[in-house]
Amino acid sequence: MTTRSARARPTERGDLFDSQCPTRQLLDRIGTKWTSMAVKVLAAAAPGEVRFAELRRRMPGVSQKMLSVTLHSLIRDGLATRRVEPTVPPRVYYRLTELGLSLEVPLAALRTWAEEHMAEIDRANAIDDARARG
Amino acid sequence: MTTRSARARPTERGDLFDSQCPTRQLLDRIGTKWTSMAVKVLAAAAPGEVRFAELRRRMPGVSQKMLSVTLHSLIRDGLATRRVEPTVPPRVYYRLTELGLSLEVPLAALRTWAEEHMAEIDRANAIDDARARG
Repeated sequence: MTTRSARARPTERGDLFDSQCPTRQLLDRIGTKWTSMAVKVLAAAAPGEVRFAELRRRMPGVSQKMLSVTLHSLIRDGLATRRVEPTVPPRVYYRLTELGLSLEVPLAALRTWAEEHMAEIDRANAIDDARARG
Repeated sequence: MTTRSARARPTERGDLFDSQCPTRQLLDRIGTKWTSMAVKVLAAAAPGEVRFAELRRRMPGVSQKMLSVTLHSLIRDGLATRRVEPTVPPRVYYRLTELGLSLEVPLAALRTWAEEHMAEIDRANAIDDARARG
């Protein structure tokens, strides 16, 4: 797909190697650590919901702002939904859609690869640092 | 792993949910469109090399600077190697290491997911835009 008019052709695949295709922006959104972590936490609770406060607690280091941005991006992409319980203060719940749940499969594979090879990569970084110092 | 001193314990896994673990930065490096594209092009040529100019031609829209940064990051992480042929002008070749080739597996899964669901996500974006306009 090269333009948004491709919406009329829903079966057409995206193409990352087409510079006009929105798959590029999509990949940069879904490949990041915060998306990966939020999707993992939400997938573990699926088909149940997770409160914003709980998500924040489960993602150490995330700011309120960054978590809001991450969740809004998931909703905009149709990967999650949001429900507000009109208490005082209101409680906000999130859950993955089926599409969001399907994303957890490749994200989990990438997370696992990163976690399993972190020590090896850390050693490569150290060698590169030593080389740079001459 | 929580610190770089973990290098002494090479079998220890990284943990994305540990805010001190470098797996977070690693995921943000490897999950981006340019890394994904470069690894795909290099994986297709493996165990052969690919010239810088050829990589640039195969990645439409990438700038010389961004391609250099992407390749340097792959080298620093031990995912690729660089060889300079001392011609005038010098020719620079890149190839994936075994570690880099192993990364292509989860990256390909994520790329495929993104390409296959792009149309669906494009429609979700359109609905969200329409909702935002009221």
